[in-house]
Amino acid sequence: MLVLVRMKNSTKVKHSKEIGIGMLGCGVVGSGVLKAFNEKKVSINQLVQHPVKLRKIFVQDTAKPRDWPVEDSMLTTNEDLVIGASNVDVVVEVMGGVDPAYDLVKQSILNRKHVVTANKELMAKNGIELMELAEQQGVNLLFEASVGGGIPIVRSIVRDLRANDIHSIRAIINGTTNYILSRMALSEIDYSDALCDAQSLGYAESDPNDDVSGIDATYKLAVLGALAFRTKIDVALIYCEGIQNLSLRDFQCAKELGYSIKLLAIATKENSLLTLRVHPVLIAETDPLSKVDGVVNAVEVQGDLIGKVIFQGPGAGPLPTSSAVVSDILEISRCIALESTLLGYGNLSNTLSIEPISNLTSKYYFRLWVKDKPGVLAAIAGVFGSNNVSIASVLQKRVDTENQSAELVITTHRARESSVWNTVSELKSMAVVQGVSSFIRVEEHSD
Amino acid sequence: MLVLVRMKNSTKVKHSKEIGIGMLGCGVVGSGVLKAFNEKKVSINQLVQHPVKLRKIFVQDTAKPRDWPVEDSMLTTNEDLVIGASNVDVVVEVMGGVDPAYDLVKQSILNRKHVVTANKELMAKNGIELMELAEQQGVNLLFEASVGGGIPIVRSIVRDLRANDIHSIRAIINGTTNYILSRMALSEIDYSDALCDAQSLGYAESDPNDDVSGIDATYKLAVLGALAFRTKIDVALIYCEGIQNLSLRDFQCAKELGYSIKLLAIATKENSLLTLRVHPVLIAETDPLSKVDGVVNAVEVQGDLIGKVIFQGPGAGPLPTSSAVVSDILEISRCIALESTLLGYGNLSNTLSIEPISNLTSKYYFRLWVKDKPGVLAAIAGVFGSNNVSIASVLQKRVDTENQSAELVITTHRARESSVWNTVSELKSMAVVQGVSSFIRVEEHSD
Repeated sequence: MLVLVRMKNSTKVKHSKEIGIGMLGCGVVGSGVLKAFNEKKVSINQLVQHPVKLRKIFVQDTAKPRDWPVEDSMLTTNEDLVIGASNVDVVVEVMGGVDPAYDLVKQSILNRKHVVTANKELMAKNGIELMELAEQQGVNLLFEASVGGGIPIVRSIVRDLRANDIHSIRAIINGTTNYILSRMALSEIDYSDALCDAQSLGYAESDPNDDVSGIDATYKLAVLGALAFRTKIDVALIYCEGIQNLSLRDFQCAKELGYSIKLLAIATKENSLLTLRVHPVLIAETDPLSKVDGVVNAVEVQGDLIGKVIFQGPGAGPLPTSSAVVSDILEISRCIALESTLLGYGNLSNTLSIEPISNLTSKYYFRLWVKDKPGVLAAIAGVFGSNNVSIASVLQKRVDTENQSAELVITTHRARESSVWNTVSELKSMAVVQGVSSFIRVEEHSD
Repeated sequence: MLVLVRMKNSTKVKHSKEIGIGMLGCGVVGSGVLKAFNEKKVSINQLVQHPVKLRKIFVQDTAKPRDWPVEDSMLTTNEDLVIGASNVDVVVEVMGGVDPAYDLVKQSILNRKHVVTANKELMAKNGIELMELAEQQGVNLLFEASVGGGIPIVRSIVRDLRANDIHSIRAIINGTTNYILSRMALSEIDYSDALCDAQSLGYAESDPNDDVSGIDATYKLAVLGALAFRTKIDVALIYCEGIQNLSLRDFQCAKELGYSIKLLAIATKENSLLTLRVHPVLIAETDPLSKVDGVVNAVEVQGDLIGKVIFQGPGAGPLPTSSAVVSDILEISRCIALESTLLGYGNLSNTLSIEPISNLTSKYYFRLWVKDKPGVLAAIAGVFGSNNVSIASVLQKRVDTENQSAELVITTHRARESSVWNTVSELKSMAVVQGVSSFIRVEEHSD
């Protein structure tokens, strides 16, 4: 146990030795952190008023080429030289994924190292457990970079908006998909062309599944939701639907109706019920989120006092991510230098239930091809009506005279998701319906 | 001196007594804080894990009606019962203005009270001095509400973006003027009508001068600039130009050219030179700030790592402001409960020079009425040329046949402000020029 004296001048530096940093991983993000850390050595030491030194970097393969030059002696394949070293105070985890990051972060905390991580999957799946462990061990676990790159959203939610009862989070939280959707909308190209374009620019990986399927966004939503609603969130219970089946045609129809199409991550709380979902939405062009184009992220938080606040910026990339990682390192280093303790995130043990998506009420957009003959619209309207789904508008968009078929775009008033599923299923079984091409939720202004 | 023991479980509550809050002022913002504080009693005590009690409120007149009911016994005209009371740990200053707020805040700090303030003018004029005093006294001075209402911009800059070398801040930071400009643009009405409208909705005060003249924005820019560039900023050195002389006609011309008109507060740093200015600008419709309409605030921060990040939300109003004030109270109360110390804002003693506006280089927009006869354009172009101001475009907008005059809209390439002033002065002295109706800076994308 350490006895310390609170001085009248609380900022007087008390820590006597160098502050040691160890890193786990040295890929794209790690190289960005290294670059920032090296280029800013002088200002880091000034800000901390104390020397901050990088000790060792744990990597799987020391021979692998790096985006930023690293001395060989800095690299090690022995994790203990980072997480177990007595001269390491802060462990920076930038490996990504859960295995082996989980074990390494947990052991670091057990070894009473402070931890900074950029790992959304780890924080989504094991965040609460690791935060509690860190609190028990009296060390800090900071993870600003795990959501929204360098956008300061994590600590803003838990600290600067703490006075609020947060009602909802609506976020464009995956830059890859937002780039693809923006390209489809603005350049009128197909999904596959937009994806190729994103890949050629380095905005999408060669296997883009985690991004385009929405999985990446569910991780980030789980982290934000846990902090905003102060509860554990099981990622597996977040409804998730990707962008792979969106058609250029829907962008055109949406535009005519005054909407954009975005992949939103949405978390809402009503009393003790949470709704958590990631899926494409039609969103009115008057909504600020509809105007967020390109690889940018934007997170809207709505609380009882603040109303709506939006955080917008680059959600990925080595430099923006290193902005958050290095700021976290600075925060912890200042704490060590001043022998102070950061405040934890407090109690995250609210008990809230997650509503299944079938209980959602929303407006909906349908696009379907039907036989172009009298009585068809009445029959289709009948199916909506018998399922208690009230139609708001019907537009006949195109006619295919050769196949005697017509394209209909139908929007509904608010209806229950399960009723909409029944409607789709009945529509598909009708002889006069040639296909339900799309069915997209319409996001309403939440004023 | 207080000796404390750092426990293994750092979140264990150590403080044994109630945490006492005293308030200075009980106007619109104060009433909002009271409302939030009263309605959230239970959750505040839960978050702090400790009872937090409001003790006394200092007001000038105890008989004045309040927006939120206050027991008479809570009010006092004796400031010592707040700033000198042994059962008050945190003083919340919501009076506004410098006199007597400055003396009261300073004395509170000298009495070793933590302080939360929403006072932009006080922080702009005496912020660095008060922060240094608080640091010496070992107490916290938090002022998130002083800029941007509840938008968490203050601490985001000093802490979450700390790793960055911040290059620029561009902000729509006064809701009143942004509402007026949005109304002029969207409803095509005159300044005076838009101002009346803002007053009738409570968005502008009966004496709107502080807002429409840009003064309010200079206070906020001084606070943000001091934190971003870690230096003292003399408010008097911020160039300030209001919106009173903007004409509806300029909104129409700007729109045709693809621009909006906004009142921006801009702070940029190049090496050790700062440029600080508040004035209307033409801003391209492709710039996210151009789309921020109504009473909303938006602050764009650009740093070397993060790139650009934008914070957007309600910049005023009792509830949004109380979001920041109560969050600050919570932060300090948790600190007291855990017998921890918040990290200060670090060293703000960079020495930087403020460039006079005459040294600015910018693009410019001119609207002028000239004699409608041959050779006039050549003469006018000659004046621009002889002053080294290069013309980018000239449009003849309207002709007044009765007066034989024509309206010209001229935009320039980047030029030096002092050269532009000389140009204006020479233009005004020309017989063929009937008047220079407007001259507005054109804000460029800062990528």
